[in-house]
Order: sequence, then structure tokens, then C-alpha cells
Amino acid sequence: MPYVNIKITKDGASAGQKAQVISGVTNLLRDILGKNPQTTVVVIDEVDTDNWGIGGETVTQRRKQGK
Amino acid sequence: MPYVNIKITKDGASAGQKAQVISGVTNLLRDILGKNPQTTVVVIDEVDTDNWGIGGETVTQRRKQGK
Amino acid sequence: MPYVNIKITKDGASAGQKAQVISGVTNLLRDILGKNPQTTVVVIDEVDTDNWGIGGETVTQRRKQGK
Amino acid sequence: MPYVNIKITKDGASAGQKAQVISGVTNLLRDILGKNPQTTVVVIDEVDTDNWGIGGETVTQRRKQGK
Amino acid sequence: MPYVNIKITKDGASAGQKAQVISGVTNLLRDILGKNPQTTVVVIDEVDTDNWGIGGETVTQRRKQGK
Amino acid sequence: MPYVNIKITKDGASAGQKAQVISGVTNLLRDILGKNPQTTVVVIDEVDTDNWGIGGETVTQRRKQGK
Repeated sequence: MPYVNIKITKDGASAGQKAQVISGVTNLLRDILGKNPQTTVVVIDEVDTDNWGIGGETVTQRRKQGK
Repeated sequence: MPYVNIKITKDGASAGQKAQVISGVTNLLRDILGKNPQTTVVVIDEVDTDNWGIGGETVTQRRKQGK
Repeated sequence: MPYVNIKITKDGASAGQKAQVISGVTNLLRDILGKNPQTTVVVIDEVDTDNWGIGGETVTQRRKQGK
Repeated sequence: MPYVNIKITKDGASAGQKAQVISGVTNLLRDILGKNPQTTVVVIDEVDTDNWGIGGETVTQRRKQGK
Repeated sequence: MPYVNIKITKDGASAGQKAQVISGVTNLLRDILGKNPQTTVVVIDEVDTDNWGIGGETVTQRRKQGK
Repeated sequence: MPYVNIKITKDGASAGQKAQVISGVTNLLRDILGKNPQTTVVVIDEVDTDNWGIGGETVTQRRKQGK
């Protein structure tokens, strides 16, 4: 019964890609740790690039600078 | 001073229902654990059904299949 | 299929009290929002008072001052 | 490589203010704990006032009462 | 630069298994979403079975009942 | 009434350093966003290096390699 929270920047991931991530992580936890897929919960949060910081800057700022 | 985070799928919970959840959880922590309601914080996240997975599938996929 | 995370200071909550909190929150989400208890997950984190701050001070500091 | 999650009510924080928060928290963790800013991640969540509770009430309710 | 938090019950996962989970999730997000592995952060929380609830009961209670 | 969660690797941060982080972050949110320090909550999680991954490896593995 694992719970997985994945935070990514909001960059247009499609419903199909998100379904693949959910299925992939669920299988991984079954294969490596023997966790039951039926009770594995995965929640994806898509975050605005103004609200995500790394290296002391927002992702919006970094992209403007070509980082 | 507990902090509670509740994640639910985005299914049209009304402001009144969310207020009831917040009040109910706050009272529960006061009654069972003696926690001070004045400093109890509750945050509700409503998550798109494309972004919520259980059993290796998104909730969107499961509903299409009538699960 | 809600997911609930409850953070409290580590103050000797018993296994019985934690079971009551888990049961109470699960019932609340069923009664108010119609959520399925069978797939409701609740995780309780107990946090050292040195690691919990409110009002700019740790709970350890506040208790020494009788707050 | 710290990870910081900041939840605030959605009250019109500007992109500039959010960039200042990200830069400030990153510097603080470098100065106090010696953490590497290049791998410090900060994510800000802005939460609707209907979804934020304190003292058993939503922030929406409290503001209507002038609290 | 995704951030992933995985919560599992504390059941003796080895350091090697946890390393496999971290490597597997990081590769998955690179392969499906094109995310940079160098800035992908994965944090695993291992939770006491008294503190994990599903179906309104703690995992400790469920295991005693052979669920 | 912000809520801040800071995750760092468990590397012997002292109670004094953690108190400084809590005080510093609380002041920052007051100064930049005008948030009330009295209801600002900060929770620090210290995570084992076996349970923290970056770049697809655990911090334990990276340190052995001198990264």
C-alpha cells in the first residue's frame, strides 16, 4: 500500500504520459519491494515554473537565461 | 499544532463540504489527542483524475471501465 | 480513495489513539464526501519538538518558556 | 540537496515575490546548514482559501468574520 | 528536476532495494517525460505500521487479523 | 498562516541550527509576503542518506564515490 507523490513542472505532460508514469512506478514497487499494486496510490502534481526553484532561482528565470 | 493534508480527487466538493471536513478533523484531533484547535492547520488538495493513480491506472481510466 | 497525512509532535500518542484517529478521519471522509473507506489511506508522522516550529520558535523552546 | 515545500494561501503573490522567497530560503539553508544551493529545490503551493483551515474554520469563513 | 516522495511501511527494505527504487523511478521519469536524472530527487519515508491506516484500520491491526 | 516543510539529509544538524532555520524562514515569509509569524508552521524532516536519491543514486552511494 505505498503512496507516491511526484512533483514535476507544468510542461504539457499528456494524460497518456501521466498514465504511463503511474503504471511504471506501480510496477516498480511491486517488482522490487513486493508491494501490492491494487493499493498503490500515485499522485502527480504539476507545478507552475514561477513556483519551482532550484539553485536559488525560479525555473522561469533559468529558462530565460537559457539554463 | 497538528498539520493535516487531505488529498482527494477533484469531484466538485462544495465549499460547505470542505468546511465540514476541516471542522471535523480539527475536532477529532482535539477529542482524541488533546490537540489545540486554534493552531490546527488543515489543507485540502483537489487533484485531477488524470493525475491520480491506483492499481496502476489513472482514476480517469478506471471510471471509463466502470471500476 | 483519499490520502491523508497528519503531522503531530512526538508526545507519546498510543497505538490505540492513533488507530482511533485513523478510523475517525476515514469515517469523516465517507460521511461528508462519500469517499470509499476501503481505499482511504491515512499516514501519521510524529515529529520531534526540536524539528517543529511555530511563531518562529521550536516547540522545545516554547515549552521551556511555558508557552 | 534540501527539498523545501512552502504552502501559502492564494493571495496574489507576484512572480517577483515568489522568486525572492526561493532565493531567500536557498541562501538561508546554505548559510546555516552549509547546504549546496545548486541542488536545493523549493516548491511553492498556492492554496484556495476555501481549502485552507485553521482553528476549525476555512480562511474564507474567517475573513468574512473579520478574523 | 522532478521531486518524488515514496511512502512505504517499515518492513525491512534493504539499502540495495531502496537504491534500486531510486534508480528505477529516476530512469522512468527520464524515459517517459524526458526529465533530467541529474536533478531528479527521490525521498523514501518508511512508516511504522501503527501509523499507517487503510480501510479505517492500522496496518498493525490488519495483519493481526490476517488481512 | 504558511506551512513549510524542509527535508534535509540526516547529518547532525544541531537543535540550535534547526531553531535558526525555523526563525529565519518565518521572518522571510513575514518580510517578503507579509505573512503572520504567529501562525507560520515549519516542520523539518531529517532523512537517512540511504533513503535520499539524486541523479539516480542514493546519497550513501554518492558519498562513497566522493561525489
